[in-house]
Amino acid sequence: MNAPDKFAQLLSLTREPFPASTKNYLIGSRPDVRVPVRDIALTNGEQVSVYDTSGPYTDPAAGIDVRRGLPGVRGAWIEGRGDTERYEGRQRVALDDGSRSEDAARLAALRAEAAALQRTPLRARSGANHTGNVTQMHYAKKGIVTPEMEYVALRENGRREWMAQYQQDAAREQRLTGNPMGASIPKIITPEFVRDEVARGRAIIPANINHPEVEPMAIGRNFKVKINANIGNSAVTSSIEEEVEKLVWAIRWGADNVMDLSTGRNIHTTRDWIVRNSPVPIGTVPIYQALEKVGGIAEDLTWEIFRDTLIEQAEQGVDYFTIHAGVRLAFIHLTAQRRTGIVSRGGSIMAKWCMAHHRESFLYEHFEDICDIMKQYDVSFSLGDGLRPGCASDANDEAQFAELRTLGELTQTAWKHDVQTMIEGPGHVPMHMIQANMTEQLKTCHEAPFYTLGPLTIDIAPGYDHIASAIGAAMIGWMGTAMLCYVTPKEHLGLPNRDDVKQGIIAYKIAAHAADVAKGHPGARARDDALSQARFDFRWQDQFNLGLDPETAQQYHDETLPKDSAKVAHFCSMCGPKFCSMKITQEVRDFAARGMQEKAQEFRGTGGELYVPIQPV
Amino acid sequence: MNAPDKFAQLLSLTREPFPASTKNYLIGSRPDVRVPVRDIALTNGEQVSVYDTSGPYTDPAAGIDVRRGLPGVRGAWIEGRGDTERYEGRQRVALDDGSRSEDAARLAALRAEAAALQRTPLRARSGANHTGNVTQMHYAKKGIVTPEMEYVALRENGRREWMAQYQQDAAREQRLTGNPMGASIPKIITPEFVRDEVARGRAIIPANINHPEVEPMAIGRNFKVKINANIGNSAVTSSIEEEVEKLVWAIRWGADNVMDLSTGRNIHTTRDWIVRNSPVPIGTVPIYQALEKVGGIAEDLTWEIFRDTLIEQAEQGVDYFTIHAGVRLAFIHLTAQRRTGIVSRGGSIMAKWCMAHHRESFLYEHFEDICDIMKQYDVSFSLGDGLRPGCASDANDEAQFAELRTLGELTQTAWKHDVQTMIEGPGHVPMHMIQANMTEQLKTCHEAPFYTLGPLTIDIAPGYDHIASAIGAAMIGWMGTAMLCYVTPKEHLGLPNRDDVKQGIIAYKIAAHAADVAKGHPGARARDDALSQARFDFRWQDQFNLGLDPETAQQYHDETLPKDSAKVAHFCSMCGPKFCSMKITQEVRDFAARGMQEKAQEFRGTGGELYVPIQPV
Repeated sequence: MNAPDKFAQLLSLTREPFPASTKNYLIGSRPDVRVPVRDIALTNGEQVSVYDTSGPYTDPAAGIDVRRGLPGVRGAWIEGRGDTERYEGRQRVALDDGSRSEDAARLAALRAEAAALQRTPLRARSGANHTGNVTQMHYAKKGIVTPEMEYVALRENGRREWMAQYQQDAAREQRLTGNPMGASIPKIITPEFVRDEVARGRAIIPANINHPEVEPMAIGRNFKVKINANIGNSAVTSSIEEEVEKLVWAIRWGADNVMDLSTGRNIHTTRDWIVRNSPVPIGTVPIYQALEKVGGIAEDLTWEIFRDTLIEQAEQGVDYFTIHAGVRLAFIHLTAQRRTGIVSRGGSIMAKWCMAHHRESFLYEHFEDICDIMKQYDVSFSLGDGLRPGCASDANDEAQFAELRTLGELTQTAWKHDVQTMIEGPGHVPMHMIQANMTEQLKTCHEAPFYTLGPLTIDIAPGYDHIASAIGAAMIGWMGTAMLCYVTPKEHLGLPNRDDVKQGIIAYKIAAHAADVAKGHPGARARDDALSQARFDFRWQDQFNLGLDPETAQQYHDETLPKDSAKVAHFCSMCGPKFCSMKITQEVRDFAARGMQEKAQEFRGTGGELYVPIQPV
Repeated sequence: MNAPDKFAQLLSLTREPFPASTKNYLIGSRPDVRVPVRDIALTNGEQVSVYDTSGPYTDPAAGIDVRRGLPGVRGAWIEGRGDTERYEGRQRVALDDGSRSEDAARLAALRAEAAALQRTPLRARSGANHTGNVTQMHYAKKGIVTPEMEYVALRENGRREWMAQYQQDAAREQRLTGNPMGASIPKIITPEFVRDEVARGRAIIPANINHPEVEPMAIGRNFKVKINANIGNSAVTSSIEEEVEKLVWAIRWGADNVMDLSTGRNIHTTRDWIVRNSPVPIGTVPIYQALEKVGGIAEDLTWEIFRDTLIEQAEQGVDYFTIHAGVRLAFIHLTAQRRTGIVSRGGSIMAKWCMAHHRESFLYEHFEDICDIMKQYDVSFSLGDGLRPGCASDANDEAQFAELRTLGELTQTAWKHDVQTMIEGPGHVPMHMIQANMTEQLKTCHEAPFYTLGPLTIDIAPGYDHIASAIGAAMIGWMGTAMLCYVTPKEHLGLPNRDDVKQGIIAYKIAAHAADVAKGHPGARARDDALSQARFDFRWQDQFNLGLDPETAQQYHDETLPKDSAKVAHFCSMCGPKFCSMKITQEVRDFAARGMQEKAQEFRGTGGELYVPIQPV
């Protein structure tokens, strides 16, 4: 089997719905606001409904052709606003794919494969005296509730009906309501609430007008904690199927956002493949491609090349750009005494440029020019933390916080242009320094969403950094971080493979969900309750299906008890039939129910009371 | 290959030292206080020394014969105290191994295999009017510093010399010193400090006088956070080699304690195999064996059978007993409204007994009798949390806290008898409820060491509960928990296999170390610093060898860059040579060093200053 066939086959496997799951849609105020949910049918007739990031891929009714791309969810909304124009767009050049003249034949073949994925770009219509602005923040500040905002509201709420029975516990007992740590989480997310959060900069909806395929989602501390997965092109020859399969694999397991960190050749065309087939927002680090264009020599970077790259990617539909504009000339020396110096790729490239030219960063100097570009497409900022710590002993140091203050200043500049903005964060932070990091970010960056990489709480776990960092991620998510960038088991060691990507995503779904539960997002704990109830009732199949990875759960169970009869057995192989405490508990309950009645009769008349009365279960 | 041969071979593999590692010993005030450390030789000539739980197994000089058991580290110390006597001991009976009369031949063969592991037991010498007492707490309260206490002090300190260079950072910067969250951690642990902690009950040294093979260790909030791994006999026929290999495997990866949770047949003899070959303390749950003796019928348990089992196990050398004496008749109804009732096996057995007889628990009623037995052997209490929550929605409820208050009351009774005591804790606790749980335990149980299972922060991760619980474990460890009981990926699903045990232990080493770093244990972060320095210097081999699992780290790296030359390459496959930020940082540093000098000359005389001066790196 050749490579494309292999990945086409893999892709068809990856598209299979999860066990007992059906994709359905919540319909908004207009028929084209169709918000996906995954409904899980339980064996006791209940139905549990969960947030669904997997896009049309898990909808068997959806016809998918990765060589043509997904249908546009948002096309009519963007057009309906009447403030955009189609235009010819920037001319693609060979260098966009890192190609030199001798590569002409290869490049032609590459691009022919992606021919049906080409689109004529949109941009904001500008007037004589003003640059057009089509950002969600721009609309929000004007008081306009967009379909994107309504979509986000429906998505965050999900189906509230099924949660009702599980929410009774929380209503009854204070201890179960969560501690939002300063977040202001309403019981029901309304479209107006979303608008207000976007207007004040506390949330973003990354949604480039050239990426109508995106199913809108929000990143903000008053919404569910989101996760990002990184993918990138392979060192060997890529194919559309291979790149799209990576993406589909990541969103299948729950990635809310995907960053395309491709380097080397084929960057431009690979991005076409990814963006056109992605229902989740795509982020990039444009400096990587700009560096390719100057042959990898950081000193040769110019504002003009960078600017051209921004427009190139904005026209393709990238939803957010990591831009390391906080790495200023004056801060670089602060890293010289560090144990591990600068560990951000973008940060080190810019530091090198600044040192070589002994000049202030062109990203910082041209920041308003960058805003001018981004607002015409609604590309969001992910202000890069180029000086983030690369080890525990560099955490929360002056280099990091000096840059963070600059990012806060740039946030206000971006907001002046109504450009949506989030702030990237570390990295490596021991547990006792996480709260200070979060507090500093909230204060310095005016509650703009924080988007952290981990953080790793220790440095001694190479091979297991997804775990070392999930600890920090869960904590900082609870404390207010809006999106967690995943770390895979291969962090610090090599390129993650398909299983590493899955392991990283699952670890981060755990961290994000732990944060949602702790913050007390309404209904977040309902899925836990449903699963634990299934566990107690010995509904094994429901227990598997309600988990983050049904197949693995079932496989682990079946290693020792593979028979179908074991799926309803009142024990598992951990303890065996004699010792199952849950089985004994049920006996205790029955006994208690009987015993209570008998004892009640016995003590009636004597006034004796042994137990506080309970309701029969 | 037959099974014993297979496990003998596995055991010899498991005994291989870690790469670049040598076992050495710190010598105390007497030559037989020899505390093991693992010295890791780095390629730059440095040597890093770490806490070593693996016992003589990783010492190539040690002759090991699992059919004879380990040499006794503590034999002379116990004898030297002159307060013990050898006695015939309890008569072994067939039922101790769950055998009925028809099994006579099988039992004879089983016991013949373990013949050389039999020991004549020791107990405290009693007087006419008092029961003898040989507990470490008893000595501590009398002001006696035992060799065990000195051993613990040396072990906790490790080699301080190598850490010195890494501790300079912490001395310089307040942010790096940690937040002990109320713990009182001295810079140097002295034997007198250990004595004082044991005397006041804030730490225990589990060390039965019939387990002289144990290398003493301390569990207490002012010492490094410890982890426990559970093992148990196999459903199929066991062999000495197989059981010992499981133990050696667990301590190789860092288990500080091991609980033998065997059920079913062969319990007694399996325990001989484990205890005689274990350099770490062994804990058990005696009610499991007692239940076997009454054919699995909880109602048939009696104080006499339980008492006999305690003596049986104390004579064998078990170091701590989990005893669910806090499950009182009056509390049972508090669990009836819970989502998952009682999930502790021991707790549910006792609940069933109490309900069936409608009587107070015999464990509670005979608690002082139990103390009388335990003090004669120095068996420590691990007061079981039989009413721990089994899901998020049952966390921190009245059933749990009612039992916890009883455990606090029993702690004071145990201390009256000078019996060392720790308190078991949950289980399932969302992040926002962890601090309250820890605070309640510290207050209610008078700072007796807390020993928690996880806790799991969410319920929806079957197959990944080692991660869901490592988050809670790290947090509660930071907040004051002294020992963390591991959770494997198979939790809730089935019996962990060899790799699951390793995965669980590594996740918990991460959690414990993250807690140590956050608490600010002197030198805890030095290993992280050494590893990060190796990472920055591109000393790949040192980076692998300093990690928790050198083999996996190297294997992950070698998947994409297998050549030896890559081990000194200034990049890895994550980013490739062009983009390595660490490489660029070093260029920036060189550039900065040159640039600073040039600029300094340029500005000298003009009074101009662009940078804060830095020291050359």
